[in-house]
Amino acid sequence: MSDRQADKDQPNPPQAGELTLEERASMTSGGDAWHLQGIRSKGIPGYMITDGPHGLRKTAATTGAVDLNESVPATCFPPAAGLSSSWNPELVEEVGRAMGEECIQEQVAVILGPGVNIKRNPLGGRCFEFWSEDPFLAGHEAVGIISGVQSRGVGTSLKHFAVNNQETDRLRISARVGQRALREIYLPAFEYIVKTAQPWTMMCAYNQVNGVHAAQDSWLLTDVLRKEWGFKGIVMSDWGADHDRVASLQAGLNLEMPPSGTDDQVVQAVRDGRLEASQLDDMAQGMIDLAAKATPAMERSGYRYDVDAHREVARQAARESVVLLKNDGGLLPLAKDGSIAVIGEFARTPRYQGGGSSHITPTALSSFLDAAGERGVDVDFAPGFTLDDQPQSPDMTQEAVEAAGRADSVLMFLGLPEQEESEGMDRTSLDLPAKQLDLLRAVAQANPHVAVILSNGSVVSLAPWRDKAQAIMEGWLLGQEGGRALADLIFGDVSPSGKLAQTIPMDLDDDPTMLNWPGEEGHVDYGEGVYVGYRYYDSFRKPVAYPFGFGMSYADFELSDVSVRVGEGNTATVTARVTNTSDVDGAETVQVYVAPGAAKVARPSHELKGFAKVFLKAGESCEVRIALDARAFAYWSEAYDGWRVEAGDYEVQVGVSSRDIAATVSVGLPGDGRSLPLSEWSTMDEWRSDPVGSRIVERMEAEGEAGRLPVLPTDNSMATMFMAAMPINSFSVLMGKDGSTLTRYLLDQYRQVPQTGGR
Amino acid sequence: MSDRQADKDQPNPPQAGELTLEERASMTSGGDAWHLQGIRSKGIPGYMITDGPHGLRKTAATTGAVDLNESVPATCFPPAAGLSSSWNPELVEEVGRAMGEECIQEQVAVILGPGVNIKRNPLGGRCFEFWSEDPFLAGHEAVGIISGVQSRGVGTSLKHFAVNNQETDRLRISARVGQRALREIYLPAFEYIVKTAQPWTMMCAYNQVNGVHAAQDSWLLTDVLRKEWGFKGIVMSDWGADHDRVASLQAGLNLEMPPSGTDDQVVQAVRDGRLEASQLDDMAQGMIDLAAKATPAMERSGYRYDVDAHREVARQAARESVVLLKNDGGLLPLAKDGSIAVIGEFARTPRYQGGGSSHITPTALSSFLDAAGERGVDVDFAPGFTLDDQPQSPDMTQEAVEAAGRADSVLMFLGLPEQEESEGMDRTSLDLPAKQLDLLRAVAQANPHVAVILSNGSVVSLAPWRDKAQAIMEGWLLGQEGGRALADLIFGDVSPSGKLAQTIPMDLDDDPTMLNWPGEEGHVDYGEGVYVGYRYYDSFRKPVAYPFGFGMSYADFELSDVSVRVGEGNTATVTARVTNTSDVDGAETVQVYVAPGAAKVARPSHELKGFAKVFLKAGESCEVRIALDARAFAYWSEAYDGWRVEAGDYEVQVGVSSRDIAATVSVGLPGDGRSLPLSEWSTMDEWRSDPVGSRIVERMEAEGEAGRLPVLPTDNSMATMFMAAMPINSFSVLMGKDGSTLTRYLLDQYRQVPQTGGR
Repeated sequence: MSDRQADKDQPNPPQAGELTLEERASMTSGGDAWHLQGIRSKGIPGYMITDGPHGLRKTAATTGAVDLNESVPATCFPPAAGLSSSWNPELVEEVGRAMGEECIQEQVAVILGPGVNIKRNPLGGRCFEFWSEDPFLAGHEAVGIISGVQSRGVGTSLKHFAVNNQETDRLRISARVGQRALREIYLPAFEYIVKTAQPWTMMCAYNQVNGVHAAQDSWLLTDVLRKEWGFKGIVMSDWGADHDRVASLQAGLNLEMPPSGTDDQVVQAVRDGRLEASQLDDMAQGMIDLAAKATPAMERSGYRYDVDAHREVARQAARESVVLLKNDGGLLPLAKDGSIAVIGEFARTPRYQGGGSSHITPTALSSFLDAAGERGVDVDFAPGFTLDDQPQSPDMTQEAVEAAGRADSVLMFLGLPEQEESEGMDRTSLDLPAKQLDLLRAVAQANPHVAVILSNGSVVSLAPWRDKAQAIMEGWLLGQEGGRALADLIFGDVSPSGKLAQTIPMDLDDDPTMLNWPGEEGHVDYGEGVYVGYRYYDSFRKPVAYPFGFGMSYADFELSDVSVRVGEGNTATVTARVTNTSDVDGAETVQVYVAPGAAKVARPSHELKGFAKVFLKAGESCEVRIALDARAFAYWSEAYDGWRVEAGDYEVQVGVSSRDIAATVSVGLPGDGRSLPLSEWSTMDEWRSDPVGSRIVERMEAEGEAGRLPVLPTDNSMATMFMAAMPINSFSVLMGKDGSTLTRYLLDQYRQVPQTGGR
Repeated sequence: MSDRQADKDQPNPPQAGELTLEERASMTSGGDAWHLQGIRSKGIPGYMITDGPHGLRKTAATTGAVDLNESVPATCFPPAAGLSSSWNPELVEEVGRAMGEECIQEQVAVILGPGVNIKRNPLGGRCFEFWSEDPFLAGHEAVGIISGVQSRGVGTSLKHFAVNNQETDRLRISARVGQRALREIYLPAFEYIVKTAQPWTMMCAYNQVNGVHAAQDSWLLTDVLRKEWGFKGIVMSDWGADHDRVASLQAGLNLEMPPSGTDDQVVQAVRDGRLEASQLDDMAQGMIDLAAKATPAMERSGYRYDVDAHREVARQAARESVVLLKNDGGLLPLAKDGSIAVIGEFARTPRYQGGGSSHITPTALSSFLDAAGERGVDVDFAPGFTLDDQPQSPDMTQEAVEAAGRADSVLMFLGLPEQEESEGMDRTSLDLPAKQLDLLRAVAQANPHVAVILSNGSVVSLAPWRDKAQAIMEGWLLGQEGGRALADLIFGDVSPSGKLAQTIPMDLDDDPTMLNWPGEEGHVDYGEGVYVGYRYYDSFRKPVAYPFGFGMSYADFELSDVSVRVGEGNTATVTARVTNTSDVDGAETVQVYVAPGAAKVARPSHELKGFAKVFLKAGESCEVRIALDARAFAYWSEAYDGWRVEAGDYEVQVGVSSRDIAATVSVGLPGDGRSLPLSEWSTMDEWRSDPVGSRIVERMEAEGEAGRLPVLPTDNSMATMFMAAMPINSFSVLMGKDGSTLTRYLLDQYRQVPQTGGR
């Protein structure tokens, strides 16, 4: 199906000016909780929009109210917690295309997602539907959902803009975060996707950002999103995030959802002059254009997507979402001839998605037991535990231990029950339920050949029990085809290829965000700055259970021939050869991290700036090429209010996890050449390191030697040291009037130099 | 000598109104770099003021310029790094009295100190002259300097107000720190001392606090210092910290030091109306009154202090400043009959103070070797290493190892050379010089009976080498009598009694302030909030080398009979019995920590709120009684903009270090009874927990049951959970118009209740 093939058949959409003031106001709130406002007389349709983001959650209710329970069937793809581990943007795009097709069938004009908020802290209640602790990875993966869905003529809504990293008090809390962390951590995934894929819509967050509700933040919605990034679509509120129609319209919010019935306030504000009429026109025009964009796809009545093909996509996505963390003695894949005990209720009752607005009714559901049965594998199953909060039953323990004792190997399905992870609440611990771990210890005593298969939306503690498992497969949440995908991997049809999109710490208390989690009294301070996830653990050399980017395979790979070519404008291209040195097919993900050399600001020890996943048959080899743009080397400077690339050496690290770097290449970059003007507040060191300033200082010293100016102290005394770090306006403190003379000389000379270049 | 005995002989000081405008302006800057402005014709003397804070640094220069090198002799008491480990406010006061007497002799009206800035990070370049990582300890110790000096009719200058916790870029940097950390960590030592001892002067910091230069911060200098705390004295600038005479006078800065010759700007500003004349009058009057206060002491010509008595004070202070960290097998005190090798240049050339404005010319100086000689102890000395940066000489190593090999026990004097610690620069590592540690390893191999005696102004790493030492004595900087004091302790005349005023971490990178250290681009974010020092390590259960409050003795003590009596107004009194169970005299410091129960905000696991040092002869016992005021249980609430004591249970922990708690008593407090008014932004949970709100909610529910109002969802669904955490203005999102009805009902009912109590 071609991209928006019907465009040419559509009449031009009306202009906002053709609508009455009341009509324009009405366009800026929904028709009901799940529909855009339509105006039939003006030819503007009121299409449906529904929750995503890992499949369609089209409410089955017809009341027009918000109802999170029942929805029409749709393919449940792996939530982002899983899919993000694929490190495969093409696969993500394929999922997006499939979702777009389901939207056409269900007559949904916009699917709400993906959510690319950073997993600041693993307790975050929606980590299961966010992508990563790293903004580069989050942006470069989630963009596939946008481009995939939108390739089918259906819109997406990139959310939650911005800094929505927790559930606790999310409707009120102010995320207090510095400009640098905003620009380097919390905004780049949005920025990349907006610039690359132009989502039709964005959804603003509930929370406040530095004291301003996101819905009313004109800096965020207009200055950054539209003016800096060039966003062309509309911004809608998260459901109930708009508390002031006039303020939010003025800030750049096009659409209030669900409608609060306050359009008359908008009309009145225009009449009173409190809201610019042109601003309302702009906001309304965005809504009109959105409906027009969706019309071609929405008019394809009778379209039916291929349910089985989408199940296949979901299965492939699930396969690539699984991360093999441990596999001592090659326990996995399971030998074909041995007897297998399968323990854990999750093998029968899969945990495959999270709770909240993303909760989908799947078209089908395969448990691991189903999948094993499908392929004729005989297993000895014991549920082992219940998924509720009931105390452990000794009978269930005994049954499980006995099953383990008589099997050659054990597959143990552990995880977080559904009630532990949901939108609306943060977790309070990383631990798996104690009864599951008690059972694991009992089972491991009966049979040491235990492979643990995990189901959880966000990180769980592994360090306390991982020695009890010979193998660990982190299955995250895998969507409706997770059971079959796990069988594909466990029985060796396919080799695991997932990589962690999130660090698994040794201990929750190691995480620096815990010092400010989840905030208090209406605010949460992002005190860790840019040190989120591996940026902290790697920079401060803290042990972790499994590092960011880590994941094993049944195959073995070798990285070689790494080289880096520096291009124009602080760019570079990395090439490397990847060879599958084993006799098993598999995939490896080459990861490129950039480590700054000496920098003017504190920077993380290294940051992910490129990756490429390659599928290689046994013995195959290929070259990967990864481009690094100037941003890969940049930091956000508050002083310059912009991105800066400093001149100097950078390390380009090529590896297969943040802690498994195969090769490091040092490159020198010219930098962006920017410098700040010197002033009385600049230190002597700053004057000396500035091209203009240094010449003036030399002149001043020559004048001093000639006896025409006072002389700065140049011995090794403390005064000299003080002086170097002093702003030049403080010379007089140590030198009296002579100091003032020198300060004046420097400033006078500097003012006489024509300032070129720099900022 | 009685307190300001000459007061009655003095005429009343002139009123500012008796001075011309020019004279008033002139009073607000110094006469020269080390003198106040005097106006002879108006009877206002221009007294000298000089640096402290651990002795008098009266410049010997007569140029009137700032010169940090030469000063007249004065007793060099232990700098705060040492003295703070005494946990003995009476001792500190004795030091203060001695310093006051030296000021009288030297005709110094105000001695600049003490500096009670928090040791936020152990790399801080002035940690050696600050008191503690804990504001309670810093305030309750340093107050002794103030009350001691001022008891002699001489003024002090409490500094640096405020948030001056590093040297890097200190003249420009903005410390960006939240209100709660300001109030709980960075201001309380100032607050306690101002309220308790009324320092005659305060010195403002160089740095900015949240974007405002301290010298121009009217919130800090006027609202908090004068209006909230009731400060009666004057505020002077740190040397060169005043960059805008008019702005700083308006903010509440009385005195610019050193004078920049800009009094005419002040005059002009009054004439232009840019500076209120009354404000200038107030600032000038403060200066006039200060001179008058100092006059009685300054007129005592010919006064001579008792040099020997002051040396004794310095020696006693040094004894109590030493912290015994390790003493395996009771190596210390050294057996009288064994042979002793003394290794390390510091034994001969003591490091006894830090560099910078506090650098004193001592009246005498005793090294450990001198002191050993004085008592006739024969030791085999090898310098072992040089104090400069030269590479280690193999000959020196060999000499030291040989000396160690032939001795029964080894005293090894290690430490930081003077050039590594100074005002004006932060350290970059906690490590002792590598050559010293190499030597230690070599010596320990030759003789395992090594006691390491340390000289350093701030924390050094111990974890990497402490297993090589059988005993470790942390001597900090001990002032001029340190050598004798160490001999007193090492040979067992006196038992060590110092306790750590600062945590010794395992690794610098464990410290959460490292994520924001030392800042960049003109700012430093205090992202760790209140989690400074043990507040972090204990709350997050991180291993440390030696915990806050730790220190050993040759004696053994037992804590018993701990009880806590709750008083009126959220106060309590702790009593405990301390018994010296050994046959050695010694001192123990009982420490009281308060641990909040369930709190509305995140709070440190416990905080020091009281301590008492008791000296007990062998076998003696005594009861200590420690009062806890309401502040001991309070946190600073941003929401209430004030201190809050929540109702509930608190643990009172009584112990001998932050990690050695002998007894814990749980007490229930009524709390302060404050509550915030409810609003549309209050959540259902908040309505239910408010006394007024809960009655209204009950009424609403009754109306619902009666069918007269809609009913909130009460099943176990996610909607219910969402609802509880939702501000009531969001009901409509899940319930449509019914939700709006309930929101209106709650607000209407609440408005009808007369609001009493609460805030």
